Amino acid sequence: MTRKIAILGASGYTGAELARLIATHPELEVAALSGDRKAGMEMAEVFPHLGDLALPRLARIEDLDLSALDLAFCALPHATSQAVIKALPRDLKVVDLSADFRLRDPSDYETWYGKPHAAPELQKEAVYGLTEFYRAQIRTARLVAGTGCNAAAGQYALRPLLEAGVIDPDRIVIDLKAGVSGAGRALKENLLHAELSEGTHPYATGGTHRHLGEFDQEFSAIAGRPVRVQFTPHLVPMNRGILATVYVDGDPEAVHRTLSARYRDELFLRVLPFGATPSTRHVRGSNFVHIGVVGDRVPGRAIVVAALDNLAKGSSGQAIQNANLMLGLAESAGLMLAPVFP
Amino acid sequence: MTRKIAILGASGYTGAELARLIATHPELEVAALSGDRKAGMEMAEVFPHLGDLALPRLARIEDLDLSALDLAFCALPHATSQAVIKALPRDLKVVDLSADFRLRDPSDYETWYGKPHAAPELQKEAVYGLTEFYRAQIRTARLVAGTGCNAAAGQYALRPLLEAGVIDPDRIVIDLKAGVSGAGRALKENLLHAELSEGTHPYATGGTHRHLGEFDQEFSAIAGRPVRVQFTPHLVPMNRGILATVYVDGDPEAVHRTLSARYRDELFLRVLPFGATPSTRHVRGSNFVHIGVVGDRVPGRAIVVAALDNLAKGSSGQAIQNANLMLGLAESAGLMLAPVFP
Amino acid sequence: MTRKIAILGASGYTGAELARLIATHPELEVAALSGDRKAGMEMAEVFPHLGDLALPRLARIEDLDLSALDLAFCALPHATSQAVIKALPRDLKVVDLSADFRLRDPSDYETWYGKPHAAPELQKEAVYGLTEFYRAQIRTARLVAGTGCNAAAGQYALRPLLEAGVIDPDRIVIDLKAGVSGAGRALKENLLHAELSEGTHPYATGGTHRHLGEFDQEFSAIAGRPVRVQFTPHLVPMNRGILATVYVDGDPEAVHRTLSARYRDELFLRVLPFGATPSTRHVRGSNFVHIGVVGDRVPGRAIVVAALDNLAKGSSGQAIQNANLMLGLAESAGLMLAPVFP
Amino acid sequence: MTRKIAILGASGYTGAELARLIATHPELEVAALSGDRKAGMEMAEVFPHLGDLALPRLARIEDLDLSALDLAFCALPHATSQAVIKALPRDLKVVDLSADFRLRDPSDYETWYGKPHAAPELQKEAVYGLTEFYRAQIRTARLVAGTGCNAAAGQYALRPLLEAGVIDPDRIVIDLKAGVSGAGRALKENLLHAELSEGTHPYATGGTHRHLGEFDQEFSAIAGRPVRVQFTPHLVPMNRGILATVYVDGDPEAVHRTLSARYRDELFLRVLPFGATPSTRHVRGSNFVHIGVVGDRVPGRAIVVAALDNLAKGSSGQAIQNANLMLGLAESAGLMLAPVFP
Repeated sequence: MTRKIAILGASGYTGAELARLIATHPELEVAALSGDRKAGMEMAEVFPHLGDLALPRLARIEDLDLSALDLAFCALPHATSQAVIKALPRDLKVVDLSADFRLRDPSDYETWYGKPHAAPELQKEAVYGLTEFYRAQIRTARLVAGTGCNAAAGQYALRPLLEAGVIDPDRIVIDLKAGVSGAGRALKENLLHAELSEGTHPYATGGTHRHLGEFDQEFSAIAGRPVRVQFTPHLVPMNRGILATVYVDGDPEAVHRTLSARYRDELFLRVLPFGATPSTRHVRGSNFVHIGVVGDRVPGRAIVVAALDNLAKGSSGQAIQNANLMLGLAESAGLMLAPVFP
Repeated sequence: MTRKIAILGASGYTGAELARLIATHPELEVAALSGDRKAGMEMAEVFPHLGDLALPRLARIEDLDLSALDLAFCALPHATSQAVIKALPRDLKVVDLSADFRLRDPSDYETWYGKPHAAPELQKEAVYGLTEFYRAQIRTARLVAGTGCNAAAGQYALRPLLEAGVIDPDRIVIDLKAGVSGAGRALKENLLHAELSEGTHPYATGGTHRHLGEFDQEFSAIAGRPVRVQFTPHLVPMNRGILATVYVDGDPEAVHRTLSARYRDELFLRVLPFGATPSTRHVRGSNFVHIGVVGDRVPGRAIVVAALDNLAKGSSGQAIQNANLMLGLAESAGLMLAPVFP
Repeated sequence: MTRKIAILGASGYTGAELARLIATHPELEVAALSGDRKAGMEMAEVFPHLGDLALPRLARIEDLDLSALDLAFCALPHATSQAVIKALPRDLKVVDLSADFRLRDPSDYETWYGKPHAAPELQKEAVYGLTEFYRAQIRTARLVAGTGCNAAAGQYALRPLLEAGVIDPDRIVIDLKAGVSGAGRALKENLLHAELSEGTHPYATGGTHRHLGEFDQEFSAIAGRPVRVQFTPHLVPMNRGILATVYVDGDPEAVHRTLSARYRDELFLRVLPFGATPSTRHVRGSNFVHIGVVGDRVPGRAIVVAALDNLAKGSSGQAIQNANLMLGLAESAGLMLAPVFP
Repeated sequence: MTRKIAILGASGYTGAELARLIATHPELEVAALSGDRKAGMEMAEVFPHLGDLALPRLARIEDLDLSALDLAFCALPHATSQAVIKALPRDLKVVDLSADFRLRDPSDYETWYGKPHAAPELQKEAVYGLTEFYRAQIRTARLVAGTGCNAAAGQYALRPLLEAGVIDPDRIVIDLKAGVSGAGRALKENLLHAELSEGTHPYATGGTHRHLGEFDQEFSAIAGRPVRVQFTPHLVPMNRGILATVYVDGDPEAVHRTLSARYRDELFLRVLPFGATPSTRHVRGSNFVHIGVVGDRVPGRAIVVAALDNLAKGSSGQAIQNANLMLGLAESAGLMLAPVFP
């Protein structure tokens, strides 16, 4: 039986990626698309690469008939999302791809996003969408909050290690390299081809990146005491992909063993043989995560490298994986697309 | 019922693309993989992006059990292909992705490839694999010869126009821009990132590119007299994609009308509204072709622009489309993947 | 003796390229910089790559002391330029890099730019800045109009051929591939890295690109009758470079001989051996132009390929070459930088 | 007075970069070029971008007249270099760009390069070529060993901090992002455009990269006891540039103050204001190094980011800077080219 879904905020990259992935999903059908500034346009005008799919015209949210829907994906900008979701029918299942419901604590939200949350009651209700770690809650959730794409990469590398206590929580450095699509379709000078290509640079340095709020919330909960990682994201000239190089204090073999054991049965998470490292190009366009562990020459230190596609497993793929669970479908439905290389 | 197929020559880009596309094909299963120099290796070692798929180990062709197969895709280098296919069981259906069986006339083959053909009897039997124009023959063929990727792009732009007689066959210029994956995984200096990126240059200029053999054969047959197009391919710094900008003498509206009428019912071929032009990024990773027609300010001259993905619709996607027909499956089975953008 | 110059409109790419090139010019000194919206800022804030040079702070034009200057480069947007130059001291030499003074005929200007010219008397005075063809007039000019970058590439390929009458003026196709810096630093969606990289597409098709006004003006003057070329520009994913592939009716050897003879003594223009073709990467960052001629297999047809760097020889390098002539300096002063490869 | 130099091994990227930089050097002239496998060829055939320069034909080293030379740059592969330099006239000044003379201790050499050194007596004589730290010795040296490009980036970030004792030598992580030209013009599958572009991956992980030999030698000498840094290089899809992100334990303000004080009078080294970080694109093609310091949110930890161009300041620019000193020329002669952006 086909489930009807809406994509609210379909004119951004994560909205387009949802449409791309659902195109070959056996049980989901895009029944409604919203895009306020582009209301009235065909999706093919906004994203010509989607012009070969049968998709509804973009509309304003208030003009959509949401009554017949099984689930809404909300790919709206941060802050907009909370207002929109608050106004949706209470019985409509929602997967939110914005940052609005990732942090459970209202004061954490205010700290990282600079203003009070507009829907703190929903904040409480929302389940954090890192599928492999919140599977049971997601299955029964009404509202699931998609994780930050960088936050996902860092957590896949670190959660089992903190849980198992095989690394020192006070000596964690996440050096992350991100493709440009993570910054969205915004018109910013530093995202121009002429500015960005042929160069690499860090941004949001020194502990200012908002995904740190997620790391703090999750890692501290696991460790049972405050954990504050170091995190430096870099923009590299590629469109898709996140590579998180994570430096930890811990026995490399124990680190590898712990990750391998934890992810043995996870379809989308693959731990490479000890000493092998992943590349973003080998997960491009897919829902897979490749994780490598290397022992440093400095005894007692290990390097964990995690690679994923920020638009797929980092946001829209994860969102569909969660939606599958919420709708009682096979978790991997529509997500077995192989990576696109070269 | 699942059909079992082999990919002979699975260590190149077209072989890998076949594996990628078949991963979500509902009725094909990769039962055998060959790769002579890499025999014994797992596909994940040769192409790490395929490591999440269940695929057989690479073997030498002579060690494969071909008896239980429904069809073999032959993605071997030019010249190797004819020897291998000659030795295959006579009742095994074959889709060849090399250049070996594209030209029907042995002397044409010798002209363009510089030596006599080793299997002229198969050359006679082979059906030219431009699906939308050889559909009936492909359905009943034993051996189908995949077209050149550039040749496909040029023919989609021109065949209906030559058939309808709306353009002058003596004034055709095909200026083509090609991504680098079309050159394969060969170790050549000009294919290095440091050499190729951030630059554009023509190659095989002046009528020396081998795909001209296909243009000559096909266009002359349509026109009923020799047609010799001008063709200049260029290498541009992108991985996938072909953009053919075709300059013709003919009434632009008639050109647009003719192409639109001919392709109206073709699932994978889309003619854009008059005056709109396509971009390679909007077909990337997919089996779709986008075609635009523009009227030049010089009266009586039109420009046809065709965009396709050289690895998908230009070779491996086309090969699967043909295999679907040969096996009695739905022509589009496994090929409805949406383009990957950004 | 050092000559003092100003760069008006120093916050765009051509302004920055002027500053870069002048950094090693033995006789020019940047004495003033304007940038209205960025007035008050250091150049290092606007263009961090220029932070190692000693440059004046950006100011508003009206706050600059122009009295002690020898020459002003005007790198302002089209239309703004004519108003600013009109208001400059009458005895200040000016090299304008905008499109405002390229067309001599006010009605041509209105045709291509959509509104009447605001300084038609200056339009008459301005010398067209294609150095190798207007050298004598440039030497004594007060106002020189830099050419369009695409217009320069096309003219280097074609002018001597039209002058010598070795090609048919009614059968000229210019298929051009351009890097993205030619579009400037404007915030446009199609110039984003995620949109532009990994793809190729045509733009301003069918005879609508404004540089056609220059082609028409110049080629018609040479031929002594109207010449209307076909011109299709394409955007390719590279930052710098223009490759013009020009299809002509004419004897290939005569075409090569004519270009070779005409450019034999031109320092910056190099005609490659017959049959060789250029690449944009081999002129990147330099003032050199490489030109190749190929004979097509269709008798009587030739292909001329010209490569230049749009920011250097296509605008700022050309501007300095002209300024050198206007100031009585060696024409090549400051322009002998070798291309940057890889 | 012009000094005559040779470039031995001129067919690689560092050889070509030497030729490019010397093209505008006021006092150096390329009098001889060697390239064994390409002996007899014009440089324009090997590197078309250098075809506009007047350069001697490539020859075999044994066929060169070295008697009239003032200095030889040796841009040969590792291991070849030591044999060639051993055979050069004892009074010829040499700047070696290979790894052969970077390590002073023969057993260190054997450890990192896997075989005994063939010219240990020269090893002893060679001066380590990190100009700003070995200036006095370089001035009087006969043989200077150019540093590794990654080693240069890491040392600019760290040397003054170790000298001043403001960081903990046992907690240093260097996460480095490198452009592909650092790997040279070798035909390796992972350097192909189709393989490398649109992806990021680590290499030589876990303490196996040979530049660690240099870090160990230099940092241990400064600290007066063994220092073993952690070092993970990554290949990112750009041609030029190294970005070293260095994580240290130390007071961020003290770190910034120390670096600023040390480099205040260094022409080519610029420390950005506290909190600002550099980008590789802003030093591309130049001899400049940009260094930024950020304080982490974790108290007592700082991040130092250094950016340089691997072919320029990281090898050929550094080599010319050293040659200038050895020849009694101005240290910056020929090296004031501004970065090329975009």
